[in-house]
Amino acid sequence: MKPVEWLGDRLMIIDQTRLPQHEIYLELADVHQVAEAIRSLKVRGAPAIGVAAAYGIALGAQQIETQDLEDFRKEYKLVSDEIAATRPTARNLFMAVEQMDTAVGRASDVISAREYLVAEAEKIHDAEIDSTLRIAQNGATLIKDGDTILTHCNTGPLATTGSGTALGVIIEAFHQGKKIEVLATETRPLCQGARLTAWELKREHVPFRLITDSMAGHFMKQARVDMVVVGADRIAKNGDTANKIGTYSIAVLAHENGVPFYIAAPSTTFDERIDKGDEIVIEERSPDEVTHLYGKRTAPEGIEVFNPAFDVTPARYITGFITEKGISKP
Amino acid sequence: MKPVEWLGDRLMIIDQTRLPQHEIYLELADVHQVAEAIRSLKVRGAPAIGVAAAYGIALGAQQIETQDLEDFRKEYKLVSDEIAATRPTARNLFMAVEQMDTAVGRASDVISAREYLVAEAEKIHDAEIDSTLRIAQNGATLIKDGDTILTHCNTGPLATTGSGTALGVIIEAFHQGKKIEVLATETRPLCQGARLTAWELKREHVPFRLITDSMAGHFMKQARVDMVVVGADRIAKNGDTANKIGTYSIAVLAHENGVPFYIAAPSTTFDERIDKGDEIVIEERSPDEVTHLYGKRTAPEGIEVFNPAFDVTPARYITGFITEKGISKP
Repeated sequence: MKPVEWLGDRLMIIDQTRLPQHEIYLELADVHQVAEAIRSLKVRGAPAIGVAAAYGIALGAQQIETQDLEDFRKEYKLVSDEIAATRPTARNLFMAVEQMDTAVGRASDVISAREYLVAEAEKIHDAEIDSTLRIAQNGATLIKDGDTILTHCNTGPLATTGSGTALGVIIEAFHQGKKIEVLATETRPLCQGARLTAWELKREHVPFRLITDSMAGHFMKQARVDMVVVGADRIAKNGDTANKIGTYSIAVLAHENGVPFYIAAPSTTFDERIDKGDEIVIEERSPDEVTHLYGKRTAPEGIEVFNPAFDVTPARYITGFITEKGISKP
Repeated sequence: MKPVEWLGDRLMIIDQTRLPQHEIYLELADVHQVAEAIRSLKVRGAPAIGVAAAYGIALGAQQIETQDLEDFRKEYKLVSDEIAATRPTARNLFMAVEQMDTAVGRASDVISAREYLVAEAEKIHDAEIDSTLRIAQNGATLIKDGDTILTHCNTGPLATTGSGTALGVIIEAFHQGKKIEVLATETRPLCQGARLTAWELKREHVPFRLITDSMAGHFMKQARVDMVVVGADRIAKNGDTANKIGTYSIAVLAHENGVPFYIAAPSTTFDERIDKGDEIVIEERSPDEVTHLYGKRTAPEGIEVFNPAFDVTPARYITGFITEKGISKP
């Protein structure tokens, strides 16, 4: 299963909105289709968004019909901007855009610009695979035989194109032969936990139980959770971490119950230009995600909702960061 | 709208599982139908369960075909046991059963037994209406103009047959002319917040926003919540409180963010025979409630879940109890 695959003249992705019922691969033929796939969460997870974004820009650049470098750069800017505007919170998306912009800046003609862009996207993809493998290995050292680990949202291969971040840590510990059990939160509103994490854990034969988000605290209070590990979309200089809505609540509950709380993320998720968590832009998504589930309305019509896709966990609740470089304190 | 209404020879209820899409009233013709309606949450909410249970027993007793008091009492026991076995956590259910048992104990013949039982059920119903009206009035004194109040699950007229407990407090404050806003959690797995609280708030024209359970902490951290008020299913002698799963998490998050956290419940919810929260039996419900929503599967097949319907909030997180007698500290 390859969540994102470059086919030379188009990008193939698994449609994450159709899982777990349907395992459908989509071929994206231009930058607009890639942008739409990111916006609509067909491809999601901060690291996977970064990889898809890079390929999306490379694909868009291939289709710019000019041999004039200055014209090319103008049109490239539109391609790059379209991808950058898809989602506001994940650091990896902007990191990928910046790397691609730098690559195109090095080119002396259109042909080399196109080549550099494809090469840079492949480099980003390879780096992600390498980085998440190291994250999984580093994080697995924290997990003991017999541990129950709670995780939130989806941070496995689907979310990263590599081994996974938080879920990669868990799967690696299991493959090392540790007897573990996982509590996976369903992660409303879009149920990435119920749909994607459950699907990935089942594929890997890791013992797990699915719970609603509202149950995480209950099981921590009952001393049935030994460790929490989640991913990150953006980390400020002081260690404040933006991640899927609900992460902050789980961090506070872990703190209150003495359960270690780890963030697993590539070091590219750290944003040196942001000092504190409250500077991170939080994406507000469509009200329909809250009032509906799978197109089925749960709430009365004509009501108002809030739907922030992320929240910010202050550094003081975070036991440590698991990156490809090792484990560090906030 | 009467959530529970006694029609002399049968019990009419609004089917809460069909709201908010369909406002359907059901006529329950015997004790088995009443028991099934409680088990399947067609009638739900601790106080409403108590009222429906009492009428269910009265109805069952009416249909016992004997004039011999001893035979009647034997058959009555089966009726009473059937109702008592429907759900394990709500104190009000067992309180109602005990009151009905006492009423039948006073009878000297079958005719008076039947009369006493109907009268006792009506007394329980009247007491609930009276009690929740006082709760609403007492609690409303805590709410200030401009407050945003967060509530969890459904505790309005539907849940109580009267004014409501926690939601009654909110609606009363609004009717007193206070400018308030409500954050209502959807309350997974069964979405009593999205389906029922949203429906009741909309009917009463109270300004509100629906959020997922995982968002409650985020809004408290942003200082956008002035008070939390929720209901209770059973309260131990030391003040530990069993309520809908997720309540404990909200209480910890309120505590961490300095937000007052109130329980609104009739004093009959206090169980003098239970010293501490960990003695309260927590109902584990069907896995399908977690893996599905409205019959639509969200998770892969063949996976395991946990589904505790309630959790226990330690007294130290509770700012105060709002009862029909006033406001008290744990």
